[in-house]
Amino acid sequence: MHIDRLSAAERATRLQDLQAQYRALHDQHLALDLTRGKPCDEQLTLSDALDGILGGDFRAADGTDARNYGGLEGLPEARALFAEVLDTPLEETFVGGNSSLTLMYGVIDFALTVGLSGPASAWGNEDSVKFLCPTPGYDRHFGICEHLGIEMIAVPMLDNGPDMDAVEARVRSDKTIKGMWCVPRFSNPTGCVYSEETVKRIAQLGLIAADHFLVMWDNAYAVHTLYDDAAKLPSLHRHCMEQGTLNNVFQFGSTSKVTFASAGIAFLSSGARNLEALQAHMAFQSIGPNKVEQLRHVRLLKDSDTLSQHMAAHAAIIRPRFECVLTTLDTALTGSGMGQWTRPKGGYFISFDTLPGLASRVVQLAAAIGVKLTPAGATFPYGKDPADRNIRLSPTFLSLDDLQTAMDAFVVCVQLASMEAR
Amino acid sequence: MHIDRLSAAERATRLQDLQAQYRALHDQHLALDLTRGKPCDEQLTLSDALDGILGGDFRAADGTDARNYGGLEGLPEARALFAEVLDTPLEETFVGGNSSLTLMYGVIDFALTVGLSGPASAWGNEDSVKFLCPTPGYDRHFGICEHLGIEMIAVPMLDNGPDMDAVEARVRSDKTIKGMWCVPRFSNPTGCVYSEETVKRIAQLGLIAADHFLVMWDNAYAVHTLYDDAAKLPSLHRHCMEQGTLNNVFQFGSTSKVTFASAGIAFLSSGARNLEALQAHMAFQSIGPNKVEQLRHVRLLKDSDTLSQHMAAHAAIIRPRFECVLTTLDTALTGSGMGQWTRPKGGYFISFDTLPGLASRVVQLAAAIGVKLTPAGATFPYGKDPADRNIRLSPTFLSLDDLQTAMDAFVVCVQLASMEAR
Repeated sequence: MHIDRLSAAERATRLQDLQAQYRALHDQHLALDLTRGKPCDEQLTLSDALDGILGGDFRAADGTDARNYGGLEGLPEARALFAEVLDTPLEETFVGGNSSLTLMYGVIDFALTVGLSGPASAWGNEDSVKFLCPTPGYDRHFGICEHLGIEMIAVPMLDNGPDMDAVEARVRSDKTIKGMWCVPRFSNPTGCVYSEETVKRIAQLGLIAADHFLVMWDNAYAVHTLYDDAAKLPSLHRHCMEQGTLNNVFQFGSTSKVTFASAGIAFLSSGARNLEALQAHMAFQSIGPNKVEQLRHVRLLKDSDTLSQHMAAHAAIIRPRFECVLTTLDTALTGSGMGQWTRPKGGYFISFDTLPGLASRVVQLAAAIGVKLTPAGATFPYGKDPADRNIRLSPTFLSLDDLQTAMDAFVVCVQLASMEAR
Repeated sequence: MHIDRLSAAERATRLQDLQAQYRALHDQHLALDLTRGKPCDEQLTLSDALDGILGGDFRAADGTDARNYGGLEGLPEARALFAEVLDTPLEETFVGGNSSLTLMYGVIDFALTVGLSGPASAWGNEDSVKFLCPTPGYDRHFGICEHLGIEMIAVPMLDNGPDMDAVEARVRSDKTIKGMWCVPRFSNPTGCVYSEETVKRIAQLGLIAADHFLVMWDNAYAVHTLYDDAAKLPSLHRHCMEQGTLNNVFQFGSTSKVTFASAGIAFLSSGARNLEALQAHMAFQSIGPNKVEQLRHVRLLKDSDTLSQHMAAHAAIIRPRFECVLTTLDTALTGSGMGQWTRPKGGYFISFDTLPGLASRVVQLAAAIGVKLTPAGATFPYGKDPADRNIRLSPTFLSLDDLQTAMDAFVVCVQLASMEAR
């Protein structure tokens, strides 16, 4: 029954009952972690063939010895494979090391200090640099901004992407806004997929924004579908080509959640001008990426079809985990008025909103019985969720049994916090 | 015979003869590259077992799954192995990705913008930041300084390391000098090994320098001996412990020339204060290094003894190449007065000095007959060798036959340039 329709007596009874359940959970001495989107052992094992896959053949298709120095832009066959993932041309796709976060940090630092098109264009020349952050969003994006002194402005995330009316209004009225973070497919944490209209309007931002505006398009879950009917992501590259705004976007991706989280391959794409300038800058930092790891990935993932089959195997492993979370939430909380949650068709997260002001309390209650949740506020700039509602749930890493236990505890914490507050 | 003792007639005859030799070389249409210190195919093949060495066992000794996220400081067993290479404690040794250049750039950028011990300590707060650069030295070190706006001051390299009288005088008199580059064992390009006295005096620089002075100790060739009687490198860590200056040094190393140039493992060490601050900074850029590659390295290189055997196999491959270069120089140029060269006991380079003002001409002559040499001046800050004498020779990459051909051509170019100039 909906919390608002319970009588005082019913609430008191429910509260007592929940407190008893909570004490019972406490006595179980749980130690479960629902915080980060880490692949589980079974998922990682899908790519174990990476080690040894070269069979002594370290030559790239063009004869390059992957073991030796050089090739800052990555091996051609790796660029071809990951260009397909990003839906970008090979020539505008660079392939790097194990971390797209490193690439993203590098691009922002580059735009700040070196400038996308020469020293006069460096954002750091200006008194103030701001970024739009659709919320809830990814804490590590916000961390980069905070660390580099970029002021963050939250804009609402809707079911089809950022609220573009709000985004455009901000961009039009404030020329110190230099960019925006996006996780366009299976957004972190809501799982929404940007619509055609949203992608088109994002491609147009470069036309209405100040010079050297940059969309940071972190396509982290480009191929991470859980269901065949998941919405496809419209091509940002195509829309940018049409608008002439390719140099207003940097697209990123990685195989951290395709192969190995620590030993995957990250890649990026942008317009030719940006890539040329970035490459000249990167040449001071590296002689080239780990091309052996790139070659391993090409031999394992081969092409889009093989990659799709590989991702289907991931989905078969983690879909039951997502369904465990959703079923538990549905069963315990549907119609209760105690929370709302998303039903992603892919990605790594489920976004849960408590009643206003209760997220911190839920996280605290869960922590006290050994269930670690992402800190309340983590999905907002500066770690501050103004409504104190959002909690990011990460279903993938725990075993199904542990996940069920953690979720059973979670819903008790949500109910208890809600009942306490009434 | 010494060039200065040739009569005019003898010089004219020699010049004619050399011009004929040069024309003959031109007609061979050579295409040989003596520029960069790249391992050759046989060397790389010594580590081919890296791919597949894990045999499905991706667990580190402490149970960590190397395939998953985390562990910014590197796997414990990798830290232990590479701490031995640097002669530093495990706790003060971090293990990263494939490039020590990336680590070095990161440390300089960190000291400039974030500060070794908080924002007030950032070098970037000061009007001027300078670095001492022992010359000849490594062009990529100088490139980092130039790119980041750090002024470079050349100091002479002697047979036992940098001219420490000159270094100390500079450091004492100019508080804007914030650091110094060092390649302490088999220095790039002279091949000298820093002496006990030099290392001790370098460890003392932190005491006489301004706050937050940093020795960038690029121990790139720590284990790269060609002969068993090669001088050992005194321990910088021990001297810094004695002086209390551990936070005035960052030590670096990598396996780029131990295993695979593109897929090796880089590492660093410093004092606890620096490492803590650096780690906090790095956490915004990466979730962790490629731990699978780290584990592969530990399984291949195991311990100091296995590593030594591995390096002996490298030496067996490249020693004949170094001897080919030296024999050719000895035979053609000893007593000629046309040049001087070093006889390194390890490392990757031989440093050659032409008569003053002729290095560019030699490089140009060689290029015109298809022998690519490191650009004259590359071993000096801003690419400018004031005496235009130094040429860095890299014997490792070419086959012995090609190397002999290239060196035969090189000595003709040296002789021709010398004779032209008299």
